[in-house]
Amino acid sequence: MVRFGVIGYGYWGPNVVRNLTSLEGSELTAVCDKTPAARRRMQKAHPGITVASEASEILSSTDIDAVAVVTPVWTHYELTKAALENGKHVFVEKPFTSNTAQAQELIELAAKKNLKIMVDHTFLFSGAVKKIRELVEEGALGKLYYYDSTRVNLGLFQHDVNVIWDLAPHDLSIMDYLIKETPEAIVATGQTHLNGFEDVAFITLYFPDKVIAHINVNWLSPVKVRTTLIGGEKKMLVWNDLEADEKVKVYDRGVQINNRQGLYDLLVNYRSGDMWAPQLEQVEALRQELAYFVDCISNDKTPMNDGQAGLRVVKMLEAANDSLRHRGALVRL
Amino acid sequence: MVRFGVIGYGYWGPNVVRNLTSLEGSELTAVCDKTPAARRRMQKAHPGITVASEASEILSSTDIDAVAVVTPVWTHYELTKAALENGKHVFVEKPFTSNTAQAQELIELAAKKNLKIMVDHTFLFSGAVKKIRELVEEGALGKLYYYDSTRVNLGLFQHDVNVIWDLAPHDLSIMDYLIKETPEAIVATGQTHLNGFEDVAFITLYFPDKVIAHINVNWLSPVKVRTTLIGGEKKMLVWNDLEADEKVKVYDRGVQINNRQGLYDLLVNYRSGDMWAPQLEQVEALRQELAYFVDCISNDKTPMNDGQAGLRVVKMLEAANDSLRHRGALVRL
Amino acid sequence: MVRFGVIGYGYWGPNVVRNLTSLEGSELTAVCDKTPAARRRMQKAHPGITVASEASEILSSTDIDAVAVVTPVWTHYELTKAALENGKHVFVEKPFTSNTAQAQELIELAAKKNLKIMVDHTFLFSGAVKKIRELVEEGALGKLYYYDSTRVNLGLFQHDVNVIWDLAPHDLSIMDYLIKETPEAIVATGQTHLNGFEDVAFITLYFPDKVIAHINVNWLSPVKVRTTLIGGEKKMLVWNDLEADEKVKVYDRGVQINNRQGLYDLLVNYRSGDMWAPQLEQVEALRQELAYFVDCISNDKTPMNDGQAGLRVVKMLEAANDSLRHRGALVRL
Amino acid sequence: MVRFGVIGYGYWGPNVVRNLTSLEGSELTAVCDKTPAARRRMQKAHPGITVASEASEILSSTDIDAVAVVTPVWTHYELTKAALENGKHVFVEKPFTSNTAQAQELIELAAKKNLKIMVDHTFLFSGAVKKIRELVEEGALGKLYYYDSTRVNLGLFQHDVNVIWDLAPHDLSIMDYLIKETPEAIVATGQTHLNGFEDVAFITLYFPDKVIAHINVNWLSPVKVRTTLIGGEKKMLVWNDLEADEKVKVYDRGVQINNRQGLYDLLVNYRSGDMWAPQLEQVEALRQELAYFVDCISNDKTPMNDGQAGLRVVKMLEAANDSLRHRGALVRL
Repeated sequence: MVRFGVIGYGYWGPNVVRNLTSLEGSELTAVCDKTPAARRRMQKAHPGITVASEASEILSSTDIDAVAVVTPVWTHYELTKAALENGKHVFVEKPFTSNTAQAQELIELAAKKNLKIMVDHTFLFSGAVKKIRELVEEGALGKLYYYDSTRVNLGLFQHDVNVIWDLAPHDLSIMDYLIKETPEAIVATGQTHLNGFEDVAFITLYFPDKVIAHINVNWLSPVKVRTTLIGGEKKMLVWNDLEADEKVKVYDRGVQINNRQGLYDLLVNYRSGDMWAPQLEQVEALRQELAYFVDCISNDKTPMNDGQAGLRVVKMLEAANDSLRHRGALVRL
Repeated sequence: MVRFGVIGYGYWGPNVVRNLTSLEGSELTAVCDKTPAARRRMQKAHPGITVASEASEILSSTDIDAVAVVTPVWTHYELTKAALENGKHVFVEKPFTSNTAQAQELIELAAKKNLKIMVDHTFLFSGAVKKIRELVEEGALGKLYYYDSTRVNLGLFQHDVNVIWDLAPHDLSIMDYLIKETPEAIVATGQTHLNGFEDVAFITLYFPDKVIAHINVNWLSPVKVRTTLIGGEKKMLVWNDLEADEKVKVYDRGVQINNRQGLYDLLVNYRSGDMWAPQLEQVEALRQELAYFVDCISNDKTPMNDGQAGLRVVKMLEAANDSLRHRGALVRL
Repeated sequence: MVRFGVIGYGYWGPNVVRNLTSLEGSELTAVCDKTPAARRRMQKAHPGITVASEASEILSSTDIDAVAVVTPVWTHYELTKAALENGKHVFVEKPFTSNTAQAQELIELAAKKNLKIMVDHTFLFSGAVKKIRELVEEGALGKLYYYDSTRVNLGLFQHDVNVIWDLAPHDLSIMDYLIKETPEAIVATGQTHLNGFEDVAFITLYFPDKVIAHINVNWLSPVKVRTTLIGGEKKMLVWNDLEADEKVKVYDRGVQINNRQGLYDLLVNYRSGDMWAPQLEQVEALRQELAYFVDCISNDKTPMNDGQAGLRVVKMLEAANDSLRHRGALVRL
Repeated sequence: MVRFGVIGYGYWGPNVVRNLTSLEGSELTAVCDKTPAARRRMQKAHPGITVASEASEILSSTDIDAVAVVTPVWTHYELTKAALENGKHVFVEKPFTSNTAQAQELIELAAKKNLKIMVDHTFLFSGAVKKIRELVEEGALGKLYYYDSTRVNLGLFQHDVNVIWDLAPHDLSIMDYLIKETPEAIVATGQTHLNGFEDVAFITLYFPDKVIAHINVNWLSPVKVRTTLIGGEKKMLVWNDLEADEKVKVYDRGVQINNRQGLYDLLVNYRSGDMWAPQLEQVEALRQELAYFVDCISNDKTPMNDGQAGLRVVKMLEAANDSLRHRGALVRL
């Protein structure tokens, strides 16, 4: 039985708490939040569990084996460090830390203490991403050409980070999982309209072997869009996460260029075949992820979304931010 | 009566021909195409009209007042120049020319000869763009924040230009019409997968006063997308050109940041109101455009989509291409 | 403070319980369910509240003022009667009863005892139906022509009633609310494929003044559809309850027939104007309904969805069933 | 070479003419229309072909082997009869005739004269219906449960027939093709709002073996809908004819009822699997149909959509109309 403490009961915390109270193999000992209103909501929803106002109560508790850090990104480093120093495994919200130096330090600390870090890259545990990974792994798409994601809607404006740090970690962690390569270079553009942080941004990632990725994030869109196109040599797919069913559609479409001897012109062949929407696993991604964390702790396994994965995403975020500040200057990784 | 000759009867030429034969005030004298199959199709569809194999027959004809150049971009300069030198007005496909020097020269030549150039920026004559322009002009959207367009589908691969030169002129001419400013700088990224020309590309345009624009063009998408988001301070809109009805949806949604004195936190107000899909004019855009060209010739008016407008688009294309070659380097205009 | 007991903790019961525990003015005293698994789920979700296995514990409790009957339809009559006899107000699931005689008897009993009955016609409290009612009331649609609803998906098969008794009460209660007339006659057709109850059915209702209504219900559809078209003389609307936003779209479209003197032919004028999607109230319908029930009890008001409304729906269900048995024979009401 | 004459150049005639002029094996000799405007349009579009004002010129011409009757339904009988008597094959618009007696007489006359009748049930030649027929034939759907079609939009109001005679022939001919059984009985309901003809109607067809079909036709809908659900024991499909791609979606979903020995309750198993959108043939249906007619004439084959098929549809229309007049009375066939 892994005994958990949760720090932060804001937007996402209640989902972590709900799952930790009902998962097999986990037990929720205490939750803390600085805001009285959050503590009252927690108390009402889960009457039997200790509610504290200070993180220190969680961090120093001897009844807690693992801490979930569900707080703003600028607090991740300090809280995760304290938890590790107190001998606790850590499940921490994405993005892992505010910069790569912090991430490096935490990874080393965890290694020294023989503790697990899991970064909450929730989408990796969704039915859609699992199926896409499966298609990529088995070669169904053929050689990858591009990954192109649009992730926009109206708000929520963050007060401490720009739209890239808020929305892009999703796609960066998914790319990291699917493409399994480090991008060679990143170009980001964007604009600040309201409060000093970019609210519209566009990121291009150059991966090896001509794979290109693009992320369109926007806090000022009138409509919500969560659509990713993935193109490969053999097949292409559209993942629309807002569809109730049929989130992933695989198209048997493609293009082939034949260079005919002695001909100036290229011969382009288009293939247009069936579309297929595979049935996806219907489980809650966060629930699967937390069960996996409990399993990693109990059986001393290294999570795929460990500190290293978190660090890779932070590296890309840093590079994107750097490029953004210089209006699209190429930043090599 | 304006007497027309048409050069080029490939993909778009038949539409120009069909309209020129039925418009009031225009008369079609002759059509030429190098390809025998194209000439046969023309002959069959329009039995009464002269069909030639050489452009020179059109260019030198004394029965022709205006020439429509509906050929690949690399031929535009030469054909337009010859037409102007022969005293003919010119309607020329987008993009106007292969580079700005050519465009400049043609503009000067037309001015000297007192002839009209119209560049076929067809979308400016569509019901959707007209309505959007009206909304922008009357201030319904408020100060503009961004223009974000996705224009993707499978093929047609071009043999002489990349996907930017093929698909971006639509959005660049629309932006030029709506924003009425020259971008300060352009960043473009993309990748070549098949035949040596970029088939996927992403363009960011920095306009004055924090207006940002973005164009996503792709020849390798499994699905066709023609969607543009336009965000303003007061209202935002989505233009989906593939919808049968309701192509333009205007959302009474927005965000306001209030900086309260003495408060650390910003106060963000979201506004979420009605959506409204205005009835759009149902006319064929090309038909309206050609009627307007006839009118400009007959009444000696300068078209809004004249050589200067064509030049502005070519300038942006050149800059985008330049940035693309240098993996997103900022190109100032 | 109205003290509630809830009978039934199956599919819908948990929603009633959740709202009763958090609404102002209501207090949840006890919940009962015959199934041990349901009782365990209730216990876990709401640790502080009494959980019983027998309805009699709720019905006879002196700490309960009002009972929510959230059980299969064939139990409604008996449970509601017992609750009323024990001096308790009753909130009862739709459809109210299995037949009109039962409904009549319960209405009379409640009147005699001066108690309230509310039938759970939840949709009347949704943002969509409220807005539609508003549009009808203010005459925006003009004279009504038709109400045409499709309500289909795969399962859930009921074991005790056919698809009409399962799905049609929603539309019948909405019609009753919007049209405010009793249908003159009903025609229903359908077919039984699997378990002896009709799983596909089509109902036509002839209302006075040429208003016609139609309901398409189906347990065997591969896709979920919840779409209602409402046509009026001035405007028409589409209500798609599965849309995330823009559930209700109002079309300024219509047809007018002008009978020109001395002309054989009719002159038909089509009007095609803007579409408008009004912002809808975003509250949970059930929550509003239960708050309204508490208000009706506390301030001795008659609910609009009282026993009489429940009876009118049961009458239509009986007539539809009767017609269905005779393959579409007209049943007058 | 089959030499054609076309009677009627209104809404559909131009499509017949366009195909007859370009098909191999057919030649268009003459076209007639009573309306001067229609004749002018024809003349302009097809300068080389004889245009007449009277049908008799077509009917009596010795240069014509086959006549296409593309006129209102009330004229079909007379024109078809005259054509047959003059020794000409006939391609006639749907519905075949105004009543079954006329259809019978024409079938007999054609048989006596050894001439072909083809009724224009165009949809049978569309890629979507061909694919659906294929799926039904190969047993992919399993035993059929239902066919449920919605075919609605705003106008065009017909002056001589109601909405059933206008829109239902499409679905009736498709059913006739797919189900290959005669319905046992028909129930139709509807309402007249504007000009004395029903503008909204709902038809139920009881086929043998518990197959049920339903058609929803409406001239007063604010939106265009062309959606058909087809449910079978093994698979179910949705045909949305307004989708650009993916018109037909096949769902591997179903329900199975297991009657467990000694158990009161039924055990319902739901199956929820992949969805699959087969690539459809992209040809123009009318073009294929006319090519097939030329082939039937040239090689003396009986068309599948012959007079008998036309008669079966007229029989169903008559029965539906009969039921409609009696507010849903069951009409046996």
